[in-house]
Amino acid sequence: MQLLHVEHEWTHVDILNNETNTKEFLGMNANAKIPVLEINKSEYISESNAILHYFADGSDYLPSSRLERTKVLQWQFFEQYSHEPNIAVARYINTYLGLPVERLDEYKSKQKGGHKALLVMESQLSQYDFLVGSRPSIADISLFAYTHVAHEGGFDLKRYPHINAWIKSIKALPNYIEMKR
Amino acid sequence: MQLLHVEHEWTHVDILNNETNTKEFLGMNANAKIPVLEINKSEYISESNAILHYFADGSDYLPSSRLERTKVLQWQFFEQYSHEPNIAVARYINTYLGLPVERLDEYKSKQKGGHKALLVMESQLSQYDFLVGSRPSIADISLFAYTHVAHEGGFDLKRYPHINAWIKSIKALPNYIEMKR
Repeated sequence: MQLLHVEHEWTHVDILNNETNTKEFLGMNANAKIPVLEINKSEYISESNAILHYFADGSDYLPSSRLERTKVLQWQFFEQYSHEPNIAVARYINTYLGLPVERLDEYKSKQKGGHKALLVMESQLSQYDFLVGSRPSIADISLFAYTHVAHEGGFDLKRYPHINAWIKSIKALPNYIEMKR
Repeated sequence: MQLLHVEHEWTHVDILNNETNTKEFLGMNANAKIPVLEINKSEYISESNAILHYFADGSDYLPSSRLERTKVLQWQFFEQYSHEPNIAVARYINTYLGLPVERLDEYKSKQKGGHKALLVMESQLSQYDFLVGSRPSIADISLFAYTHVAHEGGFDLKRYPHINAWIKSIKALPNYIEMKR
């Protein structure tokens, strides 16, 4: 939203306090997950990657060719299936829950899958500056989110030089701001 | 592909025999997963939902309005994050691996998340004939795949009357064929 100058109002929903399970929230997303985009009082969109498409449609962050748009989607589905469940969940267990002993095995099991996902990205980024084509797209925005904080999930990014160069490129985009903590 | 009369050649890749980890296969998809669409000898697309978009682009199976296209994506990302990891994985453990004792706990843990996903679908399909708008889209194709065989993962679909009606509608689409076994 920042990159595209989209005016918006941010409402914090505390998942640790179970605020996604209120009747009001379930009316916006029956799947009880954040984020949810409220377009108006009767129209809501959930799933972060779908929301990225809603905003990027018609902008430089979504390529116009059929093949490149499909490649953007390929990376976003990779993010949801192979990257987020390992890297974001390991980070959540470590940073937000404080690595409780009863989730230590799960945390450790995420390390292998997370590094596998990072290797897939490293391979692509050793050949291209961005994940799809020669300029940044919402595929990069999607994967930047949990990649640039992967160390908080126990992933040492030092061994991925091309990912590090890519992170620097994303941070250099006009209007980039750091994620709120 | 059948619904859109797309001519194609099917190549079987045996995941139980580790055929996704050959050098040749990794050259098509570094993430070592099926399906992979070969467009030509240098262009490949992975991720089933991205492949659906490639074929549906410009057809009646992908709505033309920005909001409806976003809703199609919302359901497809729901499929990858909340539906497939529970329902398809439970089915895989049960039907393809023969429910080995060392994966019994994992199999049982998938039941709760699977039913939660089915309830989200049931809620939507109690209000609408299809997941997005008034006609079938690739959101329905995506979710039909593992939903119509969910019983093979231990999910009793009898308690979801609207899902059952929707399954009948999909099976009645022109050119529908049963999945190969």
